[in-house]
Amino acid sequence: MQQASIHSSVTLQAPGTVANLVCGFDILGLALDQPYDTMEVRLLDQPGIIITSKDGFPLPKDPALNTAGAPLIAMLEELDEPIGFEVIISKHIKPGSGIGSSAASAAGAVVGANHLLGNRFSKEDLVRFALFGEKVASGVKHADNIAPCIYGGITLIRSIFPLDIVQIPAPKLHVTVVHPQIEVRTSDARQILRKQVLLKDAIRQWGNIAGLVAGFMKSDYDLIGRSLEDVIIEPVRSILIPGFDEVKTKCKAAGALGGGISGSGPSVFMLSKDEETAHQVEKLMQEVYTRIGLDHHTYVTTINQQGVKII
Amino acid sequence: MQQASIHSSVTLQAPGTVANLVCGFDILGLALDQPYDTMEVRLLDQPGIIITSKDGFPLPKDPALNTAGAPLIAMLEELDEPIGFEVIISKHIKPGSGIGSSAASAAGAVVGANHLLGNRFSKEDLVRFALFGEKVASGVKHADNIAPCIYGGITLIRSIFPLDIVQIPAPKLHVTVVHPQIEVRTSDARQILRKQVLLKDAIRQWGNIAGLVAGFMKSDYDLIGRSLEDVIIEPVRSILIPGFDEVKTKCKAAGALGGGISGSGPSVFMLSKDEETAHQVEKLMQEVYTRIGLDHHTYVTTINQQGVKII
Repeated sequence: MQQASIHSSVTLQAPGTVANLVCGFDILGLALDQPYDTMEVRLLDQPGIIITSKDGFPLPKDPALNTAGAPLIAMLEELDEPIGFEVIISKHIKPGSGIGSSAASAAGAVVGANHLLGNRFSKEDLVRFALFGEKVASGVKHADNIAPCIYGGITLIRSIFPLDIVQIPAPKLHVTVVHPQIEVRTSDARQILRKQVLLKDAIRQWGNIAGLVAGFMKSDYDLIGRSLEDVIIEPVRSILIPGFDEVKTKCKAAGALGGGISGSGPSVFMLSKDEETAHQVEKLMQEVYTRIGLDHHTYVTTINQQGVKII
Repeated sequence: MQQASIHSSVTLQAPGTVANLVCGFDILGLALDQPYDTMEVRLLDQPGIIITSKDGFPLPKDPALNTAGAPLIAMLEELDEPIGFEVIISKHIKPGSGIGSSAASAAGAVVGANHLLGNRFSKEDLVRFALFGEKVASGVKHADNIAPCIYGGITLIRSIFPLDIVQIPAPKLHVTVVHPQIEVRTSDARQILRKQVLLKDAIRQWGNIAGLVAGFMKSDYDLIGRSLEDVIIEPVRSILIPGFDEVKTKCKAAGALGGGISGSGPSVFMLSKDEETAHQVEKLMQEVYTRIGLDHHTYVTTINQQGVKII
């Protein structure tokens, strides 16, 4: 690999994402304008993949075990050409935060590589490749971070086998995210879920997801708010997140439309109709975690409509 | 009651409806242009409710036990005025067919009564009253026949307590319905459902319902077709309907977008993009039930956009 020379290079921003959008567990996610990773992808004239961390985040050296590397291996296998890629990552989305850190690496790598190849692959192909990164990161191929990261906006993953991605138009929404600095492993968060659920709860959940999609597409903020209810996953998983109930109750009382656990946590997000409310929500989140004594980061942002952005 | 005189009178058509719209069990229904009941509602100057069947269908005489009577009792209780109603019903939607016969009686009665009262009540109020008719008919207050019957079109019942009805815009669709003349009691159809379902099946179901709502609102026929899948209710209930699997397989092969059990059966419905396919689907349905040797009625119709219609 030492002899490989660079053919061309691209710099891009790969956004954070909120998956498991309340009643849309495993099927609905959205892209954030903040935070995002910055990545450089270089096309090499020799086979192989090199992953470099620019800012000291410890990344697995073996590309097959790396969330950016595994998708590129899958892409190269379909290409069957004597080329390679180097990926240089500046991570700003903290791994384990629950806002799609691994998806950003995977999506950024394949979007960048595809750009260097003259966009030979469709967005759906790119999601298919990037899923190998999620498999490396969490053991499960789930697309509700990958799809919004690549497509932007709010995306529905109706089905993963076969892949069926649907973009859901929505009105302007402000997103407030708090990341309390505790570790919730995705595998743990999956394990505590019950394998069976009550039919009556499932019916309530699919009423809510239908309402949420209709609310987004009708730009009906009240309907969005009423539909942001998760009677299945949140009651179980929120136990892993200190302060969750208090944060949610206070934010909704302050005017947030609703929200919940981002991905499998520990980040918590809230949607608001206006920016002022989103900032008020941030203040309340900060107050709760300051009182509890947990370090935390917050973001007040909007929905990223573009997905991974070549700059 | 014999002395009551008629103040005014209205004649109306109350349409049949398809509830439990495939993946939208208990939450999604649509109104049909055919068949419909014709009803006359008369305002009386004395308290009381009289229900008359015009065509020999046996109806319970006690209004409290009648699907048209119970909703009017609920309405009169809120009015607290010394008036009454007479309802004369010409039933064309066969009771027990699974296309909303009881809902048509209930919805027609309250819409007609409200018209005679100068439309004092909102459509949501009328749904609330009409639910008492469903309670009489099946023991359960479910609104996915009532709501489309009153609102027209495709309606989502996001929640029943509190009542939250959302109209879902959709492109032109042709509906083919076959009613094989066997009895499936709603209470039996409810009883065979499992109280618990697998989380993975529930996730697939809410992916489908989200896709179906998005497909309707985007006028995306392919997405509608892909989303018309029910992995929870249909596998259990379809066993009660002879020929179901064959009808469904053949109709989809002939170009139908998809379909399933109407309400709790025994009627089966299919949605098609064009009228020609809808007629082809009817032919296939007729062939299957003729071969099985089951008497049957079929309808080739469209979605009724208006709901109960004053004529």
